Order: sequence, then structure tokens, then C-alpha cells
Amino acid sequence: MRVFVAQLDQTIGAFEENTQKILQSIEKARGKGADIVLFAEMAICGYPPEDLLLHPSFVEEMERSLQKIIEASGGLFVVVGLVRKEGGEKPLRNSAAIIHNKKLLGYHDKCLLPTYDVFDEMRYFQPGSEIKVWPYKDKKIGVTICEDIWQHGGFVDYTLYAKDPVADLMKLKPDLVLNLSASPYQFQKPQLRIKVVQAPAKSLRCPLIMCSQVGGMDQLVFDGYSLYIDFEGNIKQEAAGFKEDFLDIDLNATTPTIAPKHDPIADLYQALVLGVKDYFYKQGFKKGCLGLSGGIDSALVAYIAKDALGSENVLALGMPSRYSSSSSLKDALALANHLEIKFLEIPIETLFTSYLDLLEPHFAELKFDSTEENIQARIRGAILMAISNKLGYIVLSTGNKSELALGYCTLYGDMCGGLSVLSDVTKKQVYELAKYLNIPHSIVAKIPSAELRPNQKDTDSLPEYPIVDAVLQGYVEDLLTPEQISQKHKIPLSIVKDLIHKIHLAEYKRRQAAPGIRVSRKAFRIGRRYPIVQQWA
Amino acid sequence: MRVFVAQLDQTIGAFEENTQKILQSIEKARGKGADIVLFAEMAICGYPPEDLLLHPSFVEEMERSLQKIIEASGGLFVVVGLVRKEGGEKPLRNSAAIIHNKKLLGYHDKCLLPTYDVFDEMRYFQPGSEIKVWPYKDKKIGVTICEDIWQHGGFVDYTLYAKDPVADLMKLKPDLVLNLSASPYQFQKPQLRIKVVQAPAKSLRCPLIMCSQVGGMDQLVFDGYSLYIDFEGNIKQEAAGFKEDFLDIDLNATTPTIAPKHDPIADLYQALVLGVKDYFYKQGFKKGCLGLSGGIDSALVAYIAKDALGSENVLALGMPSRYSSSSSLKDALALANHLEIKFLEIPIETLFTSYLDLLEPHFAELKFDSTEENIQARIRGAILMAISNKLGYIVLSTGNKSELALGYCTLYGDMCGGLSVLSDVTKKQVYELAKYLNIPHSIVAKIPSAELRPNQKDTDSLPEYPIVDAVLQGYVEDLLTPEQISQKHKIPLSIVKDLIHKIHLAEYKRRQAAPGIRVSRKAFRIGRRYPIVQQWA
Repeated sequence: MRVFVAQLDQTIGAFEENTQKILQSIEKARGKGADIVLFAEMAICGYPPEDLLLHPSFVEEMERSLQKIIEASGGLFVVVGLVRKEGGEKPLRNSAAIIHNKKLLGYHDKCLLPTYDVFDEMRYFQPGSEIKVWPYKDKKIGVTICEDIWQHGGFVDYTLYAKDPVADLMKLKPDLVLNLSASPYQFQKPQLRIKVVQAPAKSLRCPLIMCSQVGGMDQLVFDGYSLYIDFEGNIKQEAAGFKEDFLDIDLNATTPTIAPKHDPIADLYQALVLGVKDYFYKQGFKKGCLGLSGGIDSALVAYIAKDALGSENVLALGMPSRYSSSSSLKDALALANHLEIKFLEIPIETLFTSYLDLLEPHFAELKFDSTEENIQARIRGAILMAISNKLGYIVLSTGNKSELALGYCTLYGDMCGGLSVLSDVTKKQVYELAKYLNIPHSIVAKIPSAELRPNQKDTDSLPEYPIVDAVLQGYVEDLLTPEQISQKHKIPLSIVKDLIHKIHLAEYKRRQAAPGIRVSRKAFRIGRRYPIVQQWA
Repeated sequence: MRVFVAQLDQTIGAFEENTQKILQSIEKARGKGADIVLFAEMAICGYPPEDLLLHPSFVEEMERSLQKIIEASGGLFVVVGLVRKEGGEKPLRNSAAIIHNKKLLGYHDKCLLPTYDVFDEMRYFQPGSEIKVWPYKDKKIGVTICEDIWQHGGFVDYTLYAKDPVADLMKLKPDLVLNLSASPYQFQKPQLRIKVVQAPAKSLRCPLIMCSQVGGMDQLVFDGYSLYIDFEGNIKQEAAGFKEDFLDIDLNATTPTIAPKHDPIADLYQALVLGVKDYFYKQGFKKGCLGLSGGIDSALVAYIAKDALGSENVLALGMPSRYSSSSSLKDALALANHLEIKFLEIPIETLFTSYLDLLEPHFAELKFDSTEENIQARIRGAILMAISNKLGYIVLSTGNKSELALGYCTLYGDMCGGLSVLSDVTKKQVYELAKYLNIPHSIVAKIPSAELRPNQKDTDSLPEYPIVDAVLQGYVEDLLTPEQISQKHKIPLSIVKDLIHKIHLAEYKRRQAAPGIRVSRKAFRIGRRYPIVQQWA
């Protein structure tokens, strides 16, 4: 028996185009002599469609696509993810349509609905209540959707479902289990996902094939890496990561076990590149611009932009002020040349002076403070946006997660942008990515500085980044108390408390931040929802 | 039997202060000779705490507060809302602690957990599975939490719960039902809520007393209006709206039925004022500034700011450009004088020229377009932010919902602000509020214009606002198709489709908009979650 896995990069709501890709995949599968064709969770509409699901007409559109897929399924067993209407507490189901030879056999409704972190499935769906096996060519085939198999190995976050669909399947003794997934990338998730899929395969003593969605969907990136695991939990085939791919699986063949190597930093880099690429292409944009300061963050974004958009589509702006070091501008220009991206120098001194002159009567005798720093950042933001508006570039924001956590950034200044490329990448990871990319030493070795006042260093305002990142991990990801973080990382309690307070204070900035690409276990805003107005910390 | 209802304006996470208010209310109730003291849903932590709930230490803090409340409950029956830890699919429960005479009798766990619109309760909580009655002084008392009683009259959005706790209570024949609520304001909600509470009272043939949270909580405003409804559904007492209040209810007394009048526009105005007030005070801010253009939107925000913060704490900035009409600046100044708020004039002409000069070599021969319009708006935004940074004012953004829907606003320009006061108020409602407030005719009668190019009018880019608002309601609130909207409102289909497309295109702006005060059935972002990257419409 041959299974064809179609790992596609769909676009949310692009029913025509998505359906065409599905139909072409079916043709391709037929050409390969497949018996079964497997697609990802919500392959018809793309995942996650969010509140588009609340439009009845959006769900009806899926029904039309399904009819076309059914018509094209002659001689094949096709399993495709979609959303369908059905009564219950919530009117919708997150389903797999099971089709054989132009007939719709029925649906599997996702039983476990993730409602934590970036997931909101209980907002839309009623969980499926039962799981069954579908007979096909003397085999019993189990169908599951993503989270359905995550509980079994104990890999679910914050939730202990009362039900374990894998345990239910064990009673039905399937010969093969299919899983339709849309499992977003996060750092080291591909390695974790292998374990998730191995657990039920071993319990069920049957092969498990997972078809994953791939692609950038707004703030989420899906890494793909579809899997074929045998009945003993051995990895037999793995699709490519971060691009469309197909698996052509012969269940009867003796296939050697593989041991895929996942380089976490390489994966992270690919996730960021794909995140930028799909954010642009799926909106019909081609060109991106950024402020290139000569520092490590914007240098990294320039590499990512080049790989995502092509060097001919990237424009870097050097916008020196009176506080910029000459080495910064020199490094920025050299990097732009190295990457073969366009570079424009637009000094901000005249504008900075104009603002200071205009405001001087109102500021009276008050001394230089963050106001003047912010003015410089906002001038740069306004210039980037003017270039964006007039010449059709989308601005890439270059701040990192550690800065965003603490509010060490200027709202409407360096936070401007259509997409914030590094907003979920810690300063530590920025350095790791710089090493991976061989970013020039003069940039990497530079002492971090916003260069918004004379001889400024980030450490004038913040502890060293390893301390910031430890508190970030302890509080934001691990939800520890200040005391626990202080003990675990040997950081004075007062510093921990001050940093946590800063994290909360900066919530108002993050609420207005450009959308970022989620690559960690806990990204600000999209998977982490906190009130601005609170007095907890 | 006497019931004391404490309608409090708590602050999220302010355990010390919130608990003090609860203890003082208990003392007050004792002074009034009360038997029962009733608080709102999550009165101990404030609603909604969002992901603060995921911190185990946050939930533990509630346990400590509860102990203090129990100790203070001598001789009284006290019912107070909180969150508690308990095993299950989700580790938490949204509960009411039922206390009598220094003993914790037990908990009622909220059975119906709203997970739609602005609500995410399934993200945190497991629903309670049973409802019981609590015996006290020969009476059987039923305890419910907010949504628990909404299903009964059919008032729940998008959800048809399998369970109806009111129907379950009917079997238990309670003598009195208490309801702890945190039900956010939306336009005409107070009137609706009365019907919601009347339905179960009539079915149960027993009095129902609802204690509501009041106050601004981030983007939500809670209107209060706690209620005492008798066994026939008659309204016996209603607490004040939009401020802390108490109800002192004698269940044995013959109380006349009342017919509270709710003026929807007056309520809307109060909601906006309270939203601003609590957003400021709960963060320790006092002073607000805004750009006062002479147009109706910023005029309305000035009225709201004055009523929320006091005229001495409001600063209005007039920032004319070469395209500003002289009448605009004159009207702005006159209004500031009328409201007795400070007014500063800071013309932006020199900065505008500086930007144009600086960018001219890069813009080459390209003609005047939205780029130059946006530059003006961004200069104003930067000036407001500089005043904010240097002098300690929080910027109030003045754009309305109709503009925000269509993206007729400048990101990092007029969208700048700590709080967007009118982001959920349609242009139609802006006019209604202006009438309610008697805003001067010269401002109200002005033809809407952004004044960013010569003789500009809003209708150069948009249809008339009644058309915009009809499509907004049809698509955003009622989820109709373009065809349905076109038919219902007699608007050409092509215009409807174009406006819907604009609504989706502007999603990227709204993602970075200042947080607004939710006052409608469907506010952007907080209750409406759409992808930026999609090809549906």
C-alpha cells in the first residue's frame, strides 16, 4: 500500500488556489501509484483562519472545495482537513473528510482542541466525541488530527484532556494511523514532534504518518517535516522542513530507519526566512526596507531579508545622528555591499535640530532625557515609513525579544514596521544566529548601544543580556516567582523583581508593536495575553 | 432577610487593595444589619486577569485573600468571586466561595464558560459540573456566576451550551438566587442585561440578585448596574451605573417596582469617561494630552478627557500645517477655552519642510500622494509623544471606529497614543454624542476632512459615513455577505465589496493601534481576531 503525503504551503482563505494545489497533488499521487493521499489539518482553508470562521460564507466555501476534491478522487482514498458545520455547543467542527473513489465516507472530528498559548480552538469548535477506523483494502485506517495524538505521550501544555484518542484507537487495532497536522514551529519543536509521533506508533504497534502544514501564516511559521514512523517508532521518512514537499511512502517496502539531524539554529534561521517570505508573498509584496545601524540586530535582519526576498528587493537605510559612531555607518555600508543590497544614507541631523528648536520653548529648562532619544528614533521611523509609502517597500523592524521584553525600544520609532523579524528572538539567539551566518566580526563584537546619546551603552539602562534572558525565560516561559528565578540563576532578587516590573510596564508598547514571527515557546502577545492595566507586578 | 450587594471597581492583580475594599464592604454590610453579603465575579483579583492566571503564585495570592475574608465573616453569609486551583482538564476554576460565620462552606464553580468575542474562559478554566443550593436561615440559596444564567433566556452569543444551570436549579427549588457578574458594557447592554436576569427569576419563581463588577479594566468597561429582581421578574432595585455603589436589599419588605430608564447615548458617554479615568488612575497617571484639530472627533475626546481627568489635567495641542483651515485652529482654541483646558499651538510647517527637503532627492519626480499626508500626521504624532515623554502626559488618540475600520488613519501618526478613546465609536455615534454634549455648531457642522492636502474632504476617499457605518455593521457585527449587505442597505454591491476589502486591508494598521475602549458588540482586535495575511476578502 502506497501513501502520498502532500505537505503544502496554503494561504488562509485562498480557496481557489488552495483547492487547485490539492487537486494537483492528487494527480501527482495518482501518477506515483498511490492508494492513499493525505493532506494537512485545514488544508482547504489554511490554518489558523481565526474569526474568518465566524462568517457562514467562509465555511460554505469549504463545502464547494470539498466537492471538487471528491470528484477528483477516483480510485483513491483521500483524507483532507477542513472545517464543517454541525450542531452542538459550537456550530463548527475541525474535521478530516475521508473520501474514497468519489464518495465521501464520513468525517473524523478533532477530539482534542488546543486552547492555550497561540491556540483558541474552543472559541470555534465542538470537540469530536468518538474515533473510529476506516476500512480500506483489507486494512483498518485510523484518522487523527494534530492534538489528538499529543496527549498520549504527555506533550500537551497546561491541559490534561479527559480523553486520549490514541488509547481509544488501541481498542480498534488499526493497521495504519494518519495524522493531519498544523503544528507551528517553535525553537526545537521539530525534534519534540518526532517524539510526539513515536509514542502513539509504539503504543498502537502500527505505522503512523503525519502530514504537516508548512509556511508562514501571519505570525506563525509551520515547519513541515512531515513524518512516516513505523510500528516500532522508528523514523522511516521525513519531508523537508520549511518548504513544500511530498512523501511517497510504500508501506510494504523495507525502508531503512533514518536519524534526521535537526540543527536548532539552522531551523530557527529557516523559520525566520520563511516567516518573512510568506508574509510578503502572500500579501503580494516584494520589497523590504530596514534601518541598518551597524549593530548586530539590524545586520541579522538584513541577512534574513536578503534570503527571503532576494538582494535586489532589499533596501537598507543608514540614518546617522550626531551620536552615531563613524564605525557604525562604515560597518552598515560594508555589510550592504557584502550582501549586495541597496544602501541609502539619510542623515537625521537637520530634522533632529528642527524638532529640538520647535519644542525648546515648551521644554523650557528641562534636561536631555529619553524624550530626545525617542525623537531620533521616531525621525528614523518616519523616514522609513515615507520610503515605504512612496517607493513601495514594507518596513522590517529590527528589535529583538530581549529589548521588547523590557521596553528598551521606541514606540513609533525603531518599533515601526510591517513585520518585526526578531521580536521573538532573544539577544542570546541573535548572537548564535550571527555566528551561524558568519556575520562580520566588527559588527558582532560591537558593544550593544542604541547610540541615542553620547557614549551610550545598553548596560547603562539594563543588566547584561545573559541576566535579562535568564529572567525572561524564568518569568515569561517558565512562570516562576522572582524568588525561584533568583535562586535558579543566582541573580540578586532586587534585579529580578526590577526586570519583571519592567516586563509588565512595557506591555503597552508591545500592544502596539509590529506583528512578529513566533519562534519560541512563548511569544509576546500572540501566545501571551496580559493586561496593560494591572498591579500584580 | 437582608442582602448587601457590593458593586466595586477593583484593579486587576491589586490583591491588597482589592481585599481591603472587600473587608470594608463586609463591615459596611454588618453596619446595615445584613445577613448576606454578595460580591462580583473574581472580586478578589479583578476581571479579566488574562494570562496572569497562569502564574501559580497569582492564584495562591487569592487563597491568602480568601482567608482574610473568611476571618472577617463572623455572623454573615458571604459570597465572593475568585479563582481556585483544582484538578481536571484545566487546573483552574472560576468560582464563588460560599462562606458562613468564619467557615468556608464550599464553592460554586462557573458551569458555563464564555469563549467567544472578548471572552477566553476555556483557555483557563474547567467548567463546573453541578449546581446546588446552600441552606441558610431556613432558605435555600442558589449561587450562579454570570454566564450561568445567560443561556436560560437565550442570550448567549455563538454558543449553545449543552447545560442550563437555571433549569438544574429549578429542580432544587431555591428561595433566592445570587449571581456574581463581570459583564462588560457594550452599547445598550444594560437594557439587555435586565432581560437576562428577569428570565431565570420568572422561571424559578424566586428573587434574583446580581452583583456586577464596575470599572475600566484595560479595554473593557464594566457598567455596574447591579440588580434585584423579584420572583415575578419585576425590577426592585438597581445600583448606579459606571461607579461603585451598594444595594441594601430587604427581601421581606414590600418594595415598589421600578422602571429604570437607560439613555443609550448617556450610558455610552459614561462608559468612555470611566474607561479613560480607570485606564489612567489604575496606572498612576493623571495628565492627558491630545491633538485638537477643530474637528468633531478630537472635540469629543476633549470633552471626555475633561470629564475623566479634570480640566486642569488636560492639554490640547493645535498643530496646524499649510493645509489647515484658519477656522479649524480658531474652533480648537475656542473649544479649549470653553472647556478650560490648556492649549498649545505648535505649527508643523518647519518640520514638514525639513522632511520634504531631506527626502526630495530620494523621491525624485514622484508626485504628492499619501506619503506627504502621512508625514504631516507623523510629525504631529511625534510632537504629541515628545510632550508626553518630557512633560508626563499620556496621549489620547482621537480616531473613530469608522476610520479605523477602513484604515483612514496614519499608523504612527494620528494613531499614536496610550489610549484610543473612540476606536469603538462609529462616526454616527460621534455625532450623537456631540449632540448629547452640545458641542458647538461650528465644529459639528464642519465637513469631515483630514486637512492633509488642499481642500481635502473625507468623501474624496470614502463614501459618506452612513454608507460606511452600514457596511461596518453588516460585515463586522452581523457577519453578512456582501450580497446580503447590498440588499439590506440598498448599497451598490461594488461599493460594499470595496469597503469590505478595505476593512481587511487595514488589519495591519489595527494590529498596531493604541488600545481602545470596547463599547460595541464587536470591537476590533479585542473581540475580533482576524489574520493580516489572508486572501478571503
